[in-house]
Amino acid sequence: MAQYEAPLRDMQFVLHELLNVEPILKKMPAHAELNRELMDQVIEEGGKFCAEVLFPLNQVGDREGCKLDTTTHEVKTPTGFKQAYQQFVAAGWPALSCDPAHGGQGLPHVVQTPMQEMMNAANQAWAMYPGLTHGAYQALLAHGTEEQKKTVLPKLIEGSWTGTMCLTEPHCGTDLGMLRSKAEPQADGTYKITGGKIFISSGEHDMAENIVHLVLARLPDAPSGTKGISLFLVPKFLVGKDGSLGARNTITCGALEHKMGIHGNSTCQMNLDGAVGTLVGQPNKGLNAMFVMMNGARLGVGMQSLGLMAVAYQSSAAYAKDRIQGRSLSGPKAPDKQADPIIVHPDVRRMLLTQRAYLEGSRAFAYWIALQADIAHYSADEDERHDAEDMLALLTPIIKAFITDAGFECTNLGMQVLGGHGYISEWGMEQFVRDARINMIYEGTNTIQSLDLLGRKVLGDGGAKLKKFGQEIESFIGAHYNEPGMKEFTDLLEDIGGKVTDTSMWVGMQGMKNPDEVGAAAVDYLRLVGHMVYAYFWARMAQVALPKAASDPFYRAKVETARFYYTRLLPETEMLIKRIKSGSKVLLSLEADLF
Amino acid sequence: MAQYEAPLRDMQFVLHELLNVEPILKKMPAHAELNRELMDQVIEEGGKFCAEVLFPLNQVGDREGCKLDTTTHEVKTPTGFKQAYQQFVAAGWPALSCDPAHGGQGLPHVVQTPMQEMMNAANQAWAMYPGLTHGAYQALLAHGTEEQKKTVLPKLIEGSWTGTMCLTEPHCGTDLGMLRSKAEPQADGTYKITGGKIFISSGEHDMAENIVHLVLARLPDAPSGTKGISLFLVPKFLVGKDGSLGARNTITCGALEHKMGIHGNSTCQMNLDGAVGTLVGQPNKGLNAMFVMMNGARLGVGMQSLGLMAVAYQSSAAYAKDRIQGRSLSGPKAPDKQADPIIVHPDVRRMLLTQRAYLEGSRAFAYWIALQADIAHYSADEDERHDAEDMLALLTPIIKAFITDAGFECTNLGMQVLGGHGYISEWGMEQFVRDARINMIYEGTNTIQSLDLLGRKVLGDGGAKLKKFGQEIESFIGAHYNEPGMKEFTDLLEDIGGKVTDTSMWVGMQGMKNPDEVGAAAVDYLRLVGHMVYAYFWARMAQVALPKAASDPFYRAKVETARFYYTRLLPETEMLIKRIKSGSKVLLSLEADLF
Repeated sequence: MAQYEAPLRDMQFVLHELLNVEPILKKMPAHAELNRELMDQVIEEGGKFCAEVLFPLNQVGDREGCKLDTTTHEVKTPTGFKQAYQQFVAAGWPALSCDPAHGGQGLPHVVQTPMQEMMNAANQAWAMYPGLTHGAYQALLAHGTEEQKKTVLPKLIEGSWTGTMCLTEPHCGTDLGMLRSKAEPQADGTYKITGGKIFISSGEHDMAENIVHLVLARLPDAPSGTKGISLFLVPKFLVGKDGSLGARNTITCGALEHKMGIHGNSTCQMNLDGAVGTLVGQPNKGLNAMFVMMNGARLGVGMQSLGLMAVAYQSSAAYAKDRIQGRSLSGPKAPDKQADPIIVHPDVRRMLLTQRAYLEGSRAFAYWIALQADIAHYSADEDERHDAEDMLALLTPIIKAFITDAGFECTNLGMQVLGGHGYISEWGMEQFVRDARINMIYEGTNTIQSLDLLGRKVLGDGGAKLKKFGQEIESFIGAHYNEPGMKEFTDLLEDIGGKVTDTSMWVGMQGMKNPDEVGAAAVDYLRLVGHMVYAYFWARMAQVALPKAASDPFYRAKVETARFYYTRLLPETEMLIKRIKSGSKVLLSLEADLF
Repeated sequence: MAQYEAPLRDMQFVLHELLNVEPILKKMPAHAELNRELMDQVIEEGGKFCAEVLFPLNQVGDREGCKLDTTTHEVKTPTGFKQAYQQFVAAGWPALSCDPAHGGQGLPHVVQTPMQEMMNAANQAWAMYPGLTHGAYQALLAHGTEEQKKTVLPKLIEGSWTGTMCLTEPHCGTDLGMLRSKAEPQADGTYKITGGKIFISSGEHDMAENIVHLVLARLPDAPSGTKGISLFLVPKFLVGKDGSLGARNTITCGALEHKMGIHGNSTCQMNLDGAVGTLVGQPNKGLNAMFVMMNGARLGVGMQSLGLMAVAYQSSAAYAKDRIQGRSLSGPKAPDKQADPIIVHPDVRRMLLTQRAYLEGSRAFAYWIALQADIAHYSADEDERHDAEDMLALLTPIIKAFITDAGFECTNLGMQVLGGHGYISEWGMEQFVRDARINMIYEGTNTIQSLDLLGRKVLGDGGAKLKKFGQEIESFIGAHYNEPGMKEFTDLLEDIGGKVTDTSMWVGMQGMKNPDEVGAAAVDYLRLVGHMVYAYFWARMAQVALPKAASDPFYRAKVETARFYYTRLLPETEMLIKRIKSGSKVLLSLEADLF
């Protein structure tokens, strides 16, 4: 059966031995008092909650799903979800990394992120309710009016209200420029919003007192396209000036979507029928304001797949050590038993090591990104803040797309390790695959992420941000290539760095001649840069682990996994480069009607 | 919404233009009267049945699943399944390729195979009921006693009875040597069989009058391991000498499995409590007899994924031409509309062309394999029969594993083309993904297939069968490399052929030193050989299409898809070779308890 416990040792390795977060955070005025003990304690407590409360509800949520009462428009979440949320709120978890000015605990992102990993490992569908709430908090903190902030933020931070983002309409998802929902200004400064939204995660449920929807709609006479979209705050229950709840607003759930996975999350079709809302940010600049939430959500989606990789790995590794079946090709390894445990088979190990290499590489990468978010937010040094913002901007699409592609591959490998049992629902593995699948789609499909990376983040500034990351890699190589055992990694890291530079220039040149070359290269290009990122973090992990590998098997496992990554996974890059350089013609030569 | 119609033009292209089956079949005494018109007519009729009767039931089956009455142990199949089966039987479809001596129509495998493709495209879960029946027919035809054949074969051929294969037990699937079910000989020559089986597809249902189970069990004092397994025929209802149905046998369904997909098929836990059976084949040689059914099933599983690729491709291509969203990067292509259809985007085309390349490559390969089965069965020439048997033996694991891996990749790509709608059940795409997933697992996981290919089929005869297939490729190259436009393909085909030879020799050498090298290389090796196979069939399709490409877009599409395959998919082989040559050490160096 699927199993999960918080991988504390591995998380601490990344936080303290790899990233050395304590002294970095302590330099920030807001975190001067923070110490390792507190961070570890928070994560350990969080891990208990996730493993003991959320994880046992994961299969319940999948089996029961959410239920809509079509007369009251109320949605009932699966058994136990509401109680778990009450415990979560009572323990103060929603406030963890929120602004103390509004009631938050002000802990850094790099502490929030392990908690996100564990919540998603334990129960992605459940974790989406507070996850979207945190996104709404971020958007309102950045773009809300003082009154919106005063009324809403404390409620989101304490968790008594939750949030959603209402973007997609039946005819438009990726292309929001086509959206049709209308907002009519009212004499009292509010707006009446009318339209239909689909795919609204956590759109309606029974877990919180109120729900605030961040809704994209058009003002009258707004320009067409994306420049005519505004953002509105539309509460489920109207809110008085004193914060008291008033009448039910006319934003209701018309139907629940039937989905492949994340059954425990209510994915709603939302109808707005003159629903009362207030403007967030400037008129017609709604996408700008929404991008705060979307960027947060994209990082969050990466954390969903990070979590799923963790639970799938733990579960399949346990099975592989326990299940006996057949003998090792090189002779019995458990002669006292009727068969060997399947972990003796090289291909079972290939499946486990692939999971491990992507899982641990993703964790190192994601926690480092969270640290960049802290630096961007809290550092006293403007240059440092600026550099960290660049890294966040550059690498967010890789967090979203590369980790979610890896998440799907790894949950599938975890399932494959279990053979036929992997396909049976009771074992829990196939749910991870189904849940992981949405992460490649929502918050901008992985193709959209790749266009964002290549078109906007790399070519958009002539490669400046990419070069900055390249310099970080070069200085790592310069500092460590002659340490014992490091050349095996730094030589290949240097090689992939050079190839990324060459390929970026090549694509840039082609793209100037023909923009379709960018679209033809983007998905493979994102994977290529992603592998450079993973090669960098695996080299860093190897560098930390090598000196201790002889005396402690924990570190030896890190070195061996680094070796596996470099030997078996990184070689994908040559294929990617070949594909990229094959250009767009082979994709575009057929007329559409021949498909 | 998902859509399906029989791809008649593409199927005819493979049968008649690529494989030229009519004159080849006509040389066989059994098929001297066969002609193209009859074959096309059969396939066209079959296509209507699949598209009009089976396809509309596919989502019904997924939604409703099967239901077990725990008091009667009877299973109710989804609405419409039984009626569709009655139509199928009434039209004589079960008899299509069966032996006329027992009531079959005696048509060749190469006509049966397109029918299999279409049935699985339309409804894999439904198609498994007659699919397993045909497997039971094949096993009994090869190994049954005269009485078993006389009583059972006509019933299976007319479809009034169905069949199953009962191998797996809770503690053993891959390693059948551990199986525990017992068979006690009775004074009347029958056996009483006791044990528990799991994952029995079509194990109990309401579609047929009787079900015959082919059950593996041990005789008293049988040797341990795989050499002590015998095969028994165990009917649901006992059968009198005159073929009349008697008492209910004590083989019953204890529970239905809850699965990720193929919900419309009843996957049963079967309890045998002294159930009466008769021996099939020799005592303790049950695996030999069962292998007839397993080999048929492995080919059948490949056809399941071929079908799923066909329906996923059609559905996602239709969506991509219809859905408008965003503009082409190189300027509007449908300026009269609010946005361009998404098929203008290079990455959407990458997803469609990948599906197409694997789908059409798989079809060419699979129909050619079916033709080899006909040659092996019907040819008057012993050498021809022997060569065809070698090709079947060599390539069955590639049909099973490579096509099912491609099937999972392609159904996922089809789903991805639909974006968020792909994840929603009503659209039908996510079901294809869930259904396709089991094909990588059952009838021997794809790892097992790869060990069968590399260990038994290639290294087992010192590469003789592989060399034979290589000669076929070489003579194709020799005959066509200097035709206009062919060098683009034949150069790379020659290159991959050489690399397969080198890599096979390398692995063989390593394997002699250390058998774990075979296990470490096998999965990547199967993909490598698979790509050689696909490169061969795409070169052959290009060779047929090139002369007509200028005048007919159908052929131009074939040439462009061949080009896409060679440019974008075949480059995976370099990565595979690198992985293979990285050896087993990187997989085996960690102690099991460090996982």
